[in-house]
Amino acid sequence: MALYSSSGVIRRAPPLLTDLYQFTMAYAYWRAGRHQEPAVFELFFRDNPFGGGFSLFAGLHDCLLFLRSFRFTDEDVEFLRSVLPPATDPAFFQFLRGLDCSGVTLRSVPEGTVVFARVPLMEVAGPLAVVQLLETSLLCLVNYASLVCSNAARFRLAAGPRRKLLEMGLRRAQGPDGGLTASRYTHIGGFDLTSNVQAGFLFGIPVAGTMAHSYVTSFTSLEEVWPQTLVAVSGDPDPVDIISLTKGWLSRVCELLGAEPGKIREGELAAFLSYAISYPQNFLPVIDSYSVGCSGLLNFCAVALALCELGYRPVGVRLDSGDLCRQSVDVRRVFRLCSEHFSISAFDSLIIVGTNNISEQSMAELNKKENQIDVVGVGTHLVTCTKQPSLGCVYKLVEVRGRPRMKISEDPQKSTVPGRKSVYRLLDADGHPFLDLACLAVESPPEAGVSLRCFPLGCDDSPVSVTPAQATCLRQDVFTKGQVTHPLCSAAETRAKVQSSLQTLHPRHKRLQEPDPYIVALSEKLHNLVTEIRKGSSNNSNFLLAN
Amino acid sequence: MALYSSSGVIRRAPPLLTDLYQFTMAYAYWRAGRHQEPAVFELFFRDNPFGGGFSLFAGLHDCLLFLRSFRFTDEDVEFLRSVLPPATDPAFFQFLRGLDCSGVTLRSVPEGTVVFARVPLMEVAGPLAVVQLLETSLLCLVNYASLVCSNAARFRLAAGPRRKLLEMGLRRAQGPDGGLTASRYTHIGGFDLTSNVQAGFLFGIPVAGTMAHSYVTSFTSLEEVWPQTLVAVSGDPDPVDIISLTKGWLSRVCELLGAEPGKIREGELAAFLSYAISYPQNFLPVIDSYSVGCSGLLNFCAVALALCELGYRPVGVRLDSGDLCRQSVDVRRVFRLCSEHFSISAFDSLIIVGTNNISEQSMAELNKKENQIDVVGVGTHLVTCTKQPSLGCVYKLVEVRGRPRMKISEDPQKSTVPGRKSVYRLLDADGHPFLDLACLAVESPPEAGVSLRCFPLGCDDSPVSVTPAQATCLRQDVFTKGQVTHPLCSAAETRAKVQSSLQTLHPRHKRLQEPDPYIVALSEKLHNLVTEIRKGSSNNSNFLLAN
Repeated sequence: MALYSSSGVIRRAPPLLTDLYQFTMAYAYWRAGRHQEPAVFELFFRDNPFGGGFSLFAGLHDCLLFLRSFRFTDEDVEFLRSVLPPATDPAFFQFLRGLDCSGVTLRSVPEGTVVFARVPLMEVAGPLAVVQLLETSLLCLVNYASLVCSNAARFRLAAGPRRKLLEMGLRRAQGPDGGLTASRYTHIGGFDLTSNVQAGFLFGIPVAGTMAHSYVTSFTSLEEVWPQTLVAVSGDPDPVDIISLTKGWLSRVCELLGAEPGKIREGELAAFLSYAISYPQNFLPVIDSYSVGCSGLLNFCAVALALCELGYRPVGVRLDSGDLCRQSVDVRRVFRLCSEHFSISAFDSLIIVGTNNISEQSMAELNKKENQIDVVGVGTHLVTCTKQPSLGCVYKLVEVRGRPRMKISEDPQKSTVPGRKSVYRLLDADGHPFLDLACLAVESPPEAGVSLRCFPLGCDDSPVSVTPAQATCLRQDVFTKGQVTHPLCSAAETRAKVQSSLQTLHPRHKRLQEPDPYIVALSEKLHNLVTEIRKGSSNNSNFLLAN
Repeated sequence: MALYSSSGVIRRAPPLLTDLYQFTMAYAYWRAGRHQEPAVFELFFRDNPFGGGFSLFAGLHDCLLFLRSFRFTDEDVEFLRSVLPPATDPAFFQFLRGLDCSGVTLRSVPEGTVVFARVPLMEVAGPLAVVQLLETSLLCLVNYASLVCSNAARFRLAAGPRRKLLEMGLRRAQGPDGGLTASRYTHIGGFDLTSNVQAGFLFGIPVAGTMAHSYVTSFTSLEEVWPQTLVAVSGDPDPVDIISLTKGWLSRVCELLGAEPGKIREGELAAFLSYAISYPQNFLPVIDSYSVGCSGLLNFCAVALALCELGYRPVGVRLDSGDLCRQSVDVRRVFRLCSEHFSISAFDSLIIVGTNNISEQSMAELNKKENQIDVVGVGTHLVTCTKQPSLGCVYKLVEVRGRPRMKISEDPQKSTVPGRKSVYRLLDADGHPFLDLACLAVESPPEAGVSLRCFPLGCDDSPVSVTPAQATCLRQDVFTKGQVTHPLCSAAETRAKVQSSLQTLHPRHKRLQEPDPYIVALSEKLHNLVTEIRKGSSNNSNFLLAN
């Protein structure tokens, strides 16, 4: 993601934020007079993250801003002069000083699209030296954005559509900017709220949060509560002694629930009261600082009932430790009891927030076990992507001067698919995507209702025949001649795109555990090209046959 | 870590980069007139990361810059006005606008010190509302910095002191700033080099890197090599036809090794030649684009021998796939053969760089298996801390208005140790630290040679008696009244501190697997305070005994 100034102006990733070898390679291209040769790189990842069947593509917006402003300052160039070998021709630094992306074309999958391993997500075409220099920055901007967006989408799937999801991972992210990236892309991936105020400021994400345990433990006695009165919402303008009112309710609640008043923490009650007096319409305390059942829940009910008596609507409670499911059921039961016993209907709509080191697995368990949790807050496991903390996008050369290039590794997984391509998504009669097809750019697109033969990747070399009900072009031109050619999407638009793209995906690919693999295939012509080059029987033979 | 402008000027983490609840709590304190109450928070983590016996404390430098510049702009305050509940008193925003850290004192372990779980690393004292507002930012600045620094130190221990370590994780980090943080703190933790140019620019870390596979695969034939000549280092000013020279050497190398010239990739040879002509003193190609044994190594030797003939010193090779240990041994054998057979002593000092998804475990295996790797490059596993991607630092209230505060959780691990403290590190006669002791701030420090009774944390409640040969105060005042009171350390100084601090640690605590636990203990007085508060028998009882 981009860097941000404290004033909230979005700033680009600087062009020095890349690996040194991009510059030594660029120099060697330049020295050989090859720097202007038209070249094509592809960006893709080799495996869907988290053992899943899909991923979400994100980071494009930042890539476009990066490309648009890609330019070295005098200071950048001076620094490069100090780190590149002394043999570097000074004219190269002049060349760098004048570089920009006016010769670069970016063709990309739209941001927020469901994507699959080994599909080329971005095609970056332009002068060899320039597109080489872009590698690390583009990877850095896409990798984590796509990973954390995919992670958020999985949490969303695990949570089901009803529950609200709150991102609260700032303190566990890779520094301030890592935290901002996390807040932004988890929102795009399906989270509703963030605790990160700066993310709200910069990206307009709704922010949420009320109190921490430290607030509760900072109080010891009711003497610390001030003011000790609250004015009712309507009617009597005289302030009411809310402490006495609450004590009265506490007594009745203890009686109703058969609780021991002696176990109730006075400091906790003081904290709740003090907060309620400050924000009578936003009362949602954390109730497990001492004991939910013996203290926190009773204190909450007493304060909330007092608020109700004065015409306010308390919001709910937060649970931050222990068995959230069981506790939420107990809490809800008490809410219902109070509602019935005291005829306070506001207690029927109180919400329960659960936050306690939630992982994708514990989120999925929420859907299996009986529980009454309305909002789930997720931090560490969401932003650090504990289950797989990197996506592993790569950026590979596929064409130079119109000739396909291929890396033929001894590890077949690490070999690349050569040539400039078109990528199509084939849909079945129900509108579900079932196959992504990579063709040579010169091939005509697949047609609806017409059978085609293709070669699925990752299988043996046998072809399959498929007949799409519909075929759509997966990528679009988004950057040409230094200009962004496609409107930049807002976070809200991309967020909607994520959900609609996920909507079309068949449930069998969306299963979080052991999904059916989605097929990514090469057209017959592309497959033949691979075979030719692999055999070294292509006309572009690059073996040294004699010396 | 701080955010950086593209010009390299260090900018601070903005004060809005925090959780919303800090503001709602600050408001409630302010509303109750408690915002100026003197309060003390402690920052610590509960478990050493990666299953290890120690951690390294980092991020202090950024915390100090953050504290020094902590101030809300009009724009910040306007945004807060839009997200806090409408009931918020407008005077609160005036209060925020005038806030700074002039009332805050930070007492901290020096950056780069070896530290242990449950030791309070930082003590943040000041007006309750202000020190509450600092929580998330301080955690964000310390958490990842300490985690990745500790990770780097473990990689350094696994690699042994001889091998050079190169950080190359930018493309897998949490965005640009995550990448910068990683480069900075892995260098501090013991890495020698980074691939990240911006990190070199901002922090003066030595940068390294030469070529990627894309450079190699971008070449197909020797016709692409230009210029095709090179001038010898000394002597004859006439350019030499380096292609013919190299072909001659290739022929001799193939003969020496019994290799088949027909399997050698011409494009790879062209890439190597082209790079060598550009940087004849910096020749270190990646040799596994096709096949190390059948092509890459032979091409390297031919080009390197030609360079040697012209008086240049080739640097070495990079291996990026397969069994690095075995390959490095094979490569070294060939280098020695060439050295002997062609009497080229420069081949005795060629270096071998290994980079292939290196984890701490594969690094440790390097030291067990025979290998000839001189430099190891680490990316993903280093910067994402795959083994444990978050440290889990927390920030807990321990004192308000001079009275100890304690969170008594039903989960004993989550209970806090109350009161303002001094922390001492006790050393044995050999100068090894063996116990960190937390005392009440009012207690006199432990004395060398004098036996003391203390209560180790995490054990049952039995005391132990220890006699330190030496006792040092672990923390120092680093920020008082808005000013940094201790000289800010440079990265180089902190890096040296890490190694010297690790040096004193006994090997039994440094073992990467199953280390002996280091003892962290409470003084008898502090232990008594905990017991008193826990029993509710303290004078500061906070149970609601009557209602």
